[in-house]
Amino acid sequence: MKSDNDLKILRHSAAHLLAHALKELHPEVKLTIGPATEEGFFYDFLPTTNLKEQDLEPIAQRMREIAERDLPIEHTEISKEKARELYKDNPFKLELIDEISSDTVGLATQGDFYDLCRGGHVKSTGKLKNFKLLGISGSYWRANREGQALQRISGTAFPTAKELRSYEKHREQALKYDHRKLGKQLDLFSFHEEGVGFPFFHPKGKKVLNIMTDYMRHVLHDFGYQEISTPMMLSEDLWKQSGHYDHYKDNMYFCEIEDKNYAVKPMNCPGAILVYREHPRSFRDLPLRLSEFGLVHRYELSGVLHGLFRVRAFTQDDGHIFCTPDQILDEVYESIKATEKVFHDFGFHDLDVYVATRPEKAMGSPELWDKATQALKDALTKANVPFKIAEGEGAFYGPKIEFHIKDSMGRTWQCATIQLDFFLPERFDLTYVASGGQKKQPVMIHRAIYGSFERFLGILLEHYKGALPFWLAPVQARVLTITDEQKTYAHKICDSLIKHGIRAEVDESSDQISAQIKVAQLQKVPWMLVIGPKEVENNTITLRKLDGKQEFGLSLEQLIERADKLNRPITR
Amino acid sequence: MKSDNDLKILRHSAAHLLAHALKELHPEVKLTIGPATEEGFFYDFLPTTNLKEQDLEPIAQRMREIAERDLPIEHTEISKEKARELYKDNPFKLELIDEISSDTVGLATQGDFYDLCRGGHVKSTGKLKNFKLLGISGSYWRANREGQALQRISGTAFPTAKELRSYEKHREQALKYDHRKLGKQLDLFSFHEEGVGFPFFHPKGKKVLNIMTDYMRHVLHDFGYQEISTPMMLSEDLWKQSGHYDHYKDNMYFCEIEDKNYAVKPMNCPGAILVYREHPRSFRDLPLRLSEFGLVHRYELSGVLHGLFRVRAFTQDDGHIFCTPDQILDEVYESIKATEKVFHDFGFHDLDVYVATRPEKAMGSPELWDKATQALKDALTKANVPFKIAEGEGAFYGPKIEFHIKDSMGRTWQCATIQLDFFLPERFDLTYVASGGQKKQPVMIHRAIYGSFERFLGILLEHYKGALPFWLAPVQARVLTITDEQKTYAHKICDSLIKHGIRAEVDESSDQISAQIKVAQLQKVPWMLVIGPKEVENNTITLRKLDGKQEFGLSLEQLIERADKLNRPITR
Repeated sequence: MKSDNDLKILRHSAAHLLAHALKELHPEVKLTIGPATEEGFFYDFLPTTNLKEQDLEPIAQRMREIAERDLPIEHTEISKEKARELYKDNPFKLELIDEISSDTVGLATQGDFYDLCRGGHVKSTGKLKNFKLLGISGSYWRANREGQALQRISGTAFPTAKELRSYEKHREQALKYDHRKLGKQLDLFSFHEEGVGFPFFHPKGKKVLNIMTDYMRHVLHDFGYQEISTPMMLSEDLWKQSGHYDHYKDNMYFCEIEDKNYAVKPMNCPGAILVYREHPRSFRDLPLRLSEFGLVHRYELSGVLHGLFRVRAFTQDDGHIFCTPDQILDEVYESIKATEKVFHDFGFHDLDVYVATRPEKAMGSPELWDKATQALKDALTKANVPFKIAEGEGAFYGPKIEFHIKDSMGRTWQCATIQLDFFLPERFDLTYVASGGQKKQPVMIHRAIYGSFERFLGILLEHYKGALPFWLAPVQARVLTITDEQKTYAHKICDSLIKHGIRAEVDESSDQISAQIKVAQLQKVPWMLVIGPKEVENNTITLRKLDGKQEFGLSLEQLIERADKLNRPITR
Repeated sequence: MKSDNDLKILRHSAAHLLAHALKELHPEVKLTIGPATEEGFFYDFLPTTNLKEQDLEPIAQRMREIAERDLPIEHTEISKEKARELYKDNPFKLELIDEISSDTVGLATQGDFYDLCRGGHVKSTGKLKNFKLLGISGSYWRANREGQALQRISGTAFPTAKELRSYEKHREQALKYDHRKLGKQLDLFSFHEEGVGFPFFHPKGKKVLNIMTDYMRHVLHDFGYQEISTPMMLSEDLWKQSGHYDHYKDNMYFCEIEDKNYAVKPMNCPGAILVYREHPRSFRDLPLRLSEFGLVHRYELSGVLHGLFRVRAFTQDDGHIFCTPDQILDEVYESIKATEKVFHDFGFHDLDVYVATRPEKAMGSPELWDKATQALKDALTKANVPFKIAEGEGAFYGPKIEFHIKDSMGRTWQCATIQLDFFLPERFDLTYVASGGQKKQPVMIHRAIYGSFERFLGILLEHYKGALPFWLAPVQARVLTITDEQKTYAHKICDSLIKHGIRAEVDESSDQISAQIKVAQLQKVPWMLVIGPKEVENNTITLRKLDGKQEFGLSLEQLIERADKLNRPITR
């Protein structure tokens, strides 16, 4: 593979190939747009009757045939008038043509198929043999849920068969260890039509979330944070003041209370700001680090919901630091250290880090931007963290650092961010009294490490293929007995473990030991403590792990000592 | 004081006295209703221009004058026609007259003042000298927020001056230790117009809530509960199925998601039910005890909001037990034991307990009711808890036990309830497979101990007059130094305490020791650790408590040991 751009061109051409096959098999569909994406490509279209999963294979077959035909792909520029004539029956394409500012319109042609196109294609359809269709789903014209409902076929394509095979292998594994499947298998959470996109956490899932919460609470306490909690609903006026109403309204839920409009919070920042403003603040109070495990609700189209990865409500491990401009470097440095510590404790050692800099439209003086961006870079350098620059990709209100973690299947996930904000302190007229007595404006830093508890749990499940590390496992040890005669001894062991803070239980069934092991294995219980007559006689325990390895003759004390070591991230 | 009824009659008469004075001073007001209440009485009226706080004293003065006049109070029955004539300018009274089913209407007359009245008065206004006006607030005609806005003057009255004085003394104390005032003084929480009725918890308030949560989590774990968490928003259809939509709609908030109506949850039960239904359940799985620290939102008129006592969002320490009818006794017994333990740990030893029995309209067979009500009584008897019967005061779907706690100012608060429910299992068609293999319906028990975390915190604050017990205090120990020279030693002490899990901090100011003590005293920090040159020299600590008592020459080890004992409810 040469460059990202070449891959994009290949995949965009594959989208045309898909549209070509679609038109041959279903001439009545109206095509809309078909871009390349991070993972592949898709094409959105309006069918006369909805296509189904089983329609995909014939389409893929036809795509293969067209690829075999090895048709040259030609790009021409035609007049808008001619384009309108070509698409007189397709209101979507007509709308697109109207929006093009130049006098001519690009057209890509392969055989008797043509499509509107800005350009950038492979030479002929013969280059497009290594593709795969991935699925069919619902979408909306211009992603606007008020607009026309469409169908979307997604796929991916690679330059070589080898690359496609490697992708398919990874995908297979990802599907096998899909967190939605694991969530069911491990009885962690469920989704219900009574609350689409809102996860229900079962006892074991809630247990893991509680461990994650306690852990993060300890880390943030050590890094000098004070925890607050602010309401789920706040007045529309506040969201107008914060700018969320203007920029984010479509993703928010609204309620009416006594003739006043309220929104369910999509973010925690305004709440933290009101707490900041509750007292007059002086330079002596800064930096003020407020943390909140804040449940936020965001409207998402049902079509894009995806297990815990994309939900309509999630809990952020949110933090807001109010500080002076001079404190940015130190605060960012500390945030980087906290982030590294957390990822390390969860077993993610491979990080991609980006500094996103000033975009074209930005608020705040260039000097402040320069100083702040430099502080981000300096903090990363000081922390010995290599980083790349994402030029111009900062938010309009400040530069940020993004952390992407790499999981065991080679995928990267953006989790943590450290975002500087010059905007909200201004919007809410935040001040502190400087050492000279004059009023000054603090800088605000938004930061999160997990990002979302729910999504991070999903990532952990897939990363560990369900076998969460000992300290995170909802059940850490299950005591299994060869026969019922060892149950008393088993309970004695179990009670001692529980007394030492280990999450242990006894398999109460009278099933054969092989069946008990199978169940514990499926539930990914890290320690199976196998008790037979010999163990009772010698007052020992046999430890069996998920990989099938066994250790015999362990004493209770040895086990407890080992558990304490494995629990280190929480007990420290 | 003779009986409750006499007091009611006295207070109802005092309401007439208030209305009489009101009419003499402000002839243009339109009177509506003026009932006796638990604490006193009120009168609602429509003014031409709103009355203010300062208008109360002249009204009270006029009431005293009318009481001095010692006017006889006479009750007569007049025709509806005559009554309509008397009130031709008062649409409220006309509405009331229309609703009276008999042919005549009662009228109470004292001097030239008259008022509609069912009867029951003191003999003359001379009996009404011991009253006090308490405040003026907004209200609505028939408590309907869509209806006419009115004003309400509240007051109370007693038969003797001594009783009134005693009431005033208690009230003064209650006002002094009002949790809203303490919340500000101790920097625990605040309210903002951006979220009326929704508390914002500051770091110290959130700390106390977290301690209460951890504590309750441990108790419920010991009592065999498994914690879950369910969404904040669920579909309107679900609330229709549960019956909440029909009975509770006016107290719920609604949002729209993708053309589907959702409600913000006012209760957690339907969420728990969906988790129950997620798996097939057998008799072996029962009792299943699910707990949830569930944040619920309920619409309340802004006029009735009252600090943490009455809010629009609060967190319940909710529990739902699914069991067989035969398990009711044991489960209720365990719930009583858990409730007693918690109240005991929080320092409430004086409980009033009620069993609320079958109301006239009830669902479920009388046999099931008898059996269930008997189980509640038997469980209380077994637990040695004396109780009273609240005849016919159960909900239509099952009998319940109510626990009222008495606070240090002699007031009682209903907190815990144990509520049986035959209704929801039927509504949601819940089943379990009995030992014989047939499908049966479980009974559901709803129970809460705090009731609401927020309200319970408010009660605790007033009960303890802000000086929370050591184990609940957000800051347990503050190290104060006579001069800055002892700061190093102070930090050493502080760090050791923190390492042992004690919430300690150093007063970083260089203020005089008396000023440092004053601040810690105001913030109700239970331990002031005073360090002077002598303490540094002898490697000791002086412990000063909130009552001003001091102990000298304590070692760090002695302090830590003592703290561990005081922290017992959490460390156990």
